[in-house]
Amino acid sequence: MGEDWLRTGIGRSTPDAITVRGRDLATELMGRLTFSEMAFFLTANRMPSPGETRLFDAALVSLADHGLTPSVLAARLTWTGAPESLQGSVAAGLLGAGDVFLGVVEDTARFLAAVLSGDPPDAERAVAAEIAAGRRIPGLGHNVHKVEDPRTRRLYAIAAEAGIPTPYLDLLRDVAAAHAAATGKVLPINGAGAAGAAWADLGFRPEIVRGFALLARTAGLIGHLAEEMTDPIGLRLWLDVEHRATYTGSRPPDRGDTPRPPGDTAESPNG
Amino acid sequence: MGEDWLRTGIGRSTPDAITVRGRDLATELMGRLTFSEMAFFLTANRMPSPGETRLFDAALVSLADHGLTPSVLAARLTWTGAPESLQGSVAAGLLGAGDVFLGVVEDTARFLAAVLSGDPPDAERAVAAEIAAGRRIPGLGHNVHKVEDPRTRRLYAIAAEAGIPTPYLDLLRDVAAAHAAATGKVLPINGAGAAGAAWADLGFRPEIVRGFALLARTAGLIGHLAEEMTDPIGLRLWLDVEHRATYTGSRPPDRGDTPRPPGDTAESPNG
Amino acid sequence: MGEDWLRTGIGRSTPDAITVRGRDLATELMGRLTFSEMAFFLTANRMPSPGETRLFDAALVSLADHGLTPSVLAARLTWTGAPESLQGSVAAGLLGAGDVFLGVVEDTARFLAAVLSGDPPDAERAVAAEIAAGRRIPGLGHNVHKVEDPRTRRLYAIAAEAGIPTPYLDLLRDVAAAHAAATGKVLPINGAGAAGAAWADLGFRPEIVRGFALLARTAGLIGHLAEEMTDPIGLRLWLDVEHRATYTGSRPPDRGDTPRPPGDTAESPNG
Amino acid sequence: MGEDWLRTGIGRSTPDAITVRGRDLATELMGRLTFSEMAFFLTANRMPSPGETRLFDAALVSLADHGLTPSVLAARLTWTGAPESLQGSVAAGLLGAGDVFLGVVEDTARFLAAVLSGDPPDAERAVAAEIAAGRRIPGLGHNVHKVEDPRTRRLYAIAAEAGIPTPYLDLLRDVAAAHAAATGKVLPINGAGAAGAAWADLGFRPEIVRGFALLARTAGLIGHLAEEMTDPIGLRLWLDVEHRATYTGSRPPDRGDTPRPPGDTAESPNG
Repeated sequence: MGEDWLRTGIGRSTPDAITVRGRDLATELMGRLTFSEMAFFLTANRMPSPGETRLFDAALVSLADHGLTPSVLAARLTWTGAPESLQGSVAAGLLGAGDVFLGVVEDTARFLAAVLSGDPPDAERAVAAEIAAGRRIPGLGHNVHKVEDPRTRRLYAIAAEAGIPTPYLDLLRDVAAAHAAATGKVLPINGAGAAGAAWADLGFRPEIVRGFALLARTAGLIGHLAEEMTDPIGLRLWLDVEHRATYTGSRPPDRGDTPRPPGDTAESPNG
Repeated sequence: MGEDWLRTGIGRSTPDAITVRGRDLATELMGRLTFSEMAFFLTANRMPSPGETRLFDAALVSLADHGLTPSVLAARLTWTGAPESLQGSVAAGLLGAGDVFLGVVEDTARFLAAVLSGDPPDAERAVAAEIAAGRRIPGLGHNVHKVEDPRTRRLYAIAAEAGIPTPYLDLLRDVAAAHAAATGKVLPINGAGAAGAAWADLGFRPEIVRGFALLARTAGLIGHLAEEMTDPIGLRLWLDVEHRATYTGSRPPDRGDTPRPPGDTAESPNG
Repeated sequence: MGEDWLRTGIGRSTPDAITVRGRDLATELMGRLTFSEMAFFLTANRMPSPGETRLFDAALVSLADHGLTPSVLAARLTWTGAPESLQGSVAAGLLGAGDVFLGVVEDTARFLAAVLSGDPPDAERAVAAEIAAGRRIPGLGHNVHKVEDPRTRRLYAIAAEAGIPTPYLDLLRDVAAAHAAATGKVLPINGAGAAGAAWADLGFRPEIVRGFALLARTAGLIGHLAEEMTDPIGLRLWLDVEHRATYTGSRPPDRGDTPRPPGDTAESPNG
Repeated sequence: MGEDWLRTGIGRSTPDAITVRGRDLATELMGRLTFSEMAFFLTANRMPSPGETRLFDAALVSLADHGLTPSVLAARLTWTGAPESLQGSVAAGLLGAGDVFLGVVEDTARFLAAVLSGDPPDAERAVAAEIAAGRRIPGLGHNVHKVEDPRTRRLYAIAAEAGIPTPYLDLLRDVAAAHAAATGKVLPINGAGAAGAAWADLGFRPEIVRGFALLARTAGLIGHLAEEMTDPIGLRLWLDVEHRATYTGSRPPDRGDTPRPPGDTAESPNG
C-alpha cells in the first residue's frame, strides 16, 4: 500500500500517533533520548551506545560557536532587515557554512574514507599524492589556531575515554604526522577536521557529516540571534560600514569599458 | 578595548583558546555538556538543572520530525537541484518552518506571557477576549491529531517528573479548559503549543522559542537528507507532479484581462 | 486530464515546446519581450502597455541597489564561506529584504488599497486613524533621505509621462499632505513606498508587490557578488569585526543567573 | 577618505542622492534604462549596446520559467508554511537552482572559456579529452527536449540579428558537432548552455553567469507565488504525498544495524 517510489523510513503521523523510525515518538523517544541521541537515531537508524553518544555530543559542542564569524554576522544582519522571520535569519547563517569553513568536516571524512579503502591504508602515500598534486590536506591547519587547535586534543581524549574504535581519528593523526615528515612543517589537526573524523567513526557517511556541523552551528546561531534581539549590532555595523567605505564608482567609464558611439541610444531606450 | 557598540557575550577565539559565554570551550564545555545543554547555555547564559535539561530535551525530541511535511519536501526537492550545497537544502527546509507550522510555538508562548502578566492572570477572561475578537487560541487544535496530540500528554508528564515550576504549561491547561467551557468544543493542546510553553517555563522569552523549534527540525531535516541521498524521492516527485498537473494557461487572454488595443506594440518592443 | 487540484496556468514543458501562460516561449516571448515585460506577464497574465512597461521598469531600477546595506553585506559574507553556491549568497541577501526595508513596499500598497476601498476614499481620515493608533504611515519618511527621497520625484514624473491612471500614487501624495497637515511635520514619500504604489497602480495586489522589490534587489546582489569575487570585503570585514569587538562573556554567572547548588551535576552529565 | 580595503564601486547613498556605478540613480538611470539594462550595467560596469540588450533580454526570458520544477515546488511548499515572509519562499526556490539545473549555465561558459583560451581553440580536441575522461560535455543534451531544445534555435537567431560577435555561441555549435562526429550520437544544445554561452559573449565571466539564471528564475518564482496565493497547491501536495507514501520504518532494527547488548542503556539515559 502506498507508491513504491515514494517511501520513507523516517516519520509518519496518524491521528493517534507519531512514529519516527518505527518507534512511537511519545512513549519510546520523548523522555528516553536526549536531543543529540535523537539526532543520531534519526540519521543512523540505530541507537548510539553511551560511548558513541559522548563522542557525538562532544563533536557537536565543539562546533557550536566560533565567535562573530561571517555566518553569524550574516544571520544578525538578516535579522536587522527581517525580524518577522527568525527562520530566515537562521537560514542565512547556515548558508555561509559552506566549503570554506564547515566544508572541512566533509572533506576530511571523504579523504580519510578514500585512504581507508586502500589495502592496506597508506597515509604516507596518500599525503604524498596530495602534495604532488598541489592540494591541501583537509583537516590540517587553521588560520587562527596556528600551533594547536584547542578542540582537537580534547576531542581525541574524549574519543579515547569513549572506548569505541576510531579508525578515522587514528588515521587523521597518521596523516598529520606524514604531512609533517614530508614537508618539515607541522600543521595542527583542526577542530572541524577532527569532528568530521569523529562522525565518520560513528558510522556516518562523508556526504552527511556536514549536516551535523550545521546542526551544531544552529545552536550557536540561536544564541547570537537572542543576543541580537536585546543587544543589537546589525544596524550599527551597517552604518559603520557605510561610513568607513571608500566609494570607487566613477562617472567616466572605467578603463576597459567599451566606449559608446555618439548616436548610441542604449542609455535611453525609453527616454 | 574594543568598540562599545560592537560587543558580544557569546564567543571569542584566540590562537590558544575558544571561549563561549566566558567558559573555555575545550576544557569546560566539551565532554561536560550534552549538545542540548550547550544549546540551552548558549542562549540562556546559565547552565540548566537536570530537571530543566530533561524537559528541554523532551521538547526538542517532540518537534524533531513530523513526517513528509512541506518543509521536508522543500528540503529534499532542493537537494535534487543543488546537491553541491547541503546547507542550501537545510536552509530551504527551515524557511518553510514559519508562521503556519512552527510559529505556533512562539504564538503560544507570547499569548501565555501576556495572560501571566495580568494581576492576577485570568485564563477565562483572556480566552473570552480572543473569541470575541474572532481569533484562534494559539496552541489549541491540530489538523491531524484532532482528539489528542500524543506529544502533549507525554510532555506534561515529563514536566511533572522534572520537578520544576511550570506556570506556562499550567496556564495552557487552564486556557484549554476555559476554551472548552466557553465554546462547548474540546480542542486538544497541540505539541507545538506545549513545547512553546515548556521553553517559556525554562526562562526563554517568546521571541526566541521558535529558534528551538528550528533546532529540533534541523535534526529531522538531516535525517531526511541522508535518506534522500540513498533513496531519493525529489526527482520522482517532480516528474509525478508534472505528469499529473492540469495546465490551465490559455492563448486567449483570461477573463478579467485588460483587452489590448489593436495597435498595441507592447508584445514586440524589440520585434 | 490531470488532477483538478494540481493545476497551474504558468508553465508547461513538452519535448517539443515550452509554454508560458499559454504562449510559446521560443517564438512568442523570446526576442519579443524585454525581461521586465516577461516578469510583468508572468505575474499579471497580461501584456503591459508601453506606458505600463516604462513605469514598471523605473520602479525596478529605483530599488535595484542602495549601497552596502545589511542585505548586501549578508550576501557578501555568505560568499566568503560558501563560494561553491552562488544561489546561497543570493538567497542570503534576499532573506534580509524583509519587513524593515522592503516590507514598506507591501505595507504602502496595503494601506492605500484599504483607503481606496472607502466610499469615497478619505486620506485625511485614514491618516488621523493611524496617528490616533500610534502607528507610522507606511511610505513616509526615510532615515537617510530626510528631506526628499530622490527616487520619488523621478518616479512620479515618469508615471505622469506614462499616461496611465495612477490612483495609488495620487493617493499617496494626498496621504503625505494629510500627514503634514495633521502633524505639522513634513515627511517625504520614500522610494520604497512610491514603488509599492506604482506597482499597485499597474494592477498588482499588495501581497505580491514585495516580490518585485526582491527581483530588483536580485540584480543589485549579482553586481555586488561579482565585485566580491574580484575585490572581496567579506573576509576582511569579519577579521575587522573580530578585532574591534568587545567581549563581555564572563566566567562568573551574570546577575540574574540561577546559582547552581553544590551537588549539581548538570555541567558534567557524562563527565 | 574611507578604508582602503572596504571599497565598492557599486552603490552609495547620501541624504540628497543615490549613486550607482558613478551615475545618479534618479536622473541618469531611472526612466532611461530598462531593468535588464540596469542589471547588465550593475554587473558589467558599462552600458550595453542595443544588440547586446536584445541578446541579454532573450537569454533572461528563456530561463524565466520551466513549469513546476523542483525549485518552484520548493518555493510554493515554503509559502504554505511561512506566508509571512515572501522573501523566504523566493530564497527557497533559488536554493534549488544549483549544479543540477542552472549550474549548466556556468559549466558551459567555463568549458568554452577554457577551449577559447587555447591557441588556436580546438573544439574537437577538447571534446575528445572530455569523452576520454568520461565526463559529459556541458550544454549538450536535455532530459525532456531530447531532439531539440526550442530555446536554443531561437537564441541563436536573435544573436545573429543582434550583430555582435559571439565566439562562445559559435564554439558551442562546433562543440556539438564535434561531439556528434566523435560519438555518432547527436545531442541538442540545451537552453541553459546556450544562455550561458550568450552571457559569456556579452563579456561576463563564467563565475557570475549563474547569477543571471537566478535573476531570470526569480521572475518565474514571483509568478508562481502569486498563483499559489490565489490557487494554492502546496497544502494539497503535502497531504497527497502523505497519503500516497509507503512507510518503511520498522520497530526491529534494520539489517546492518549494530545489535544493542542487553544491558545497553542508550535508549533511556534519562528514563
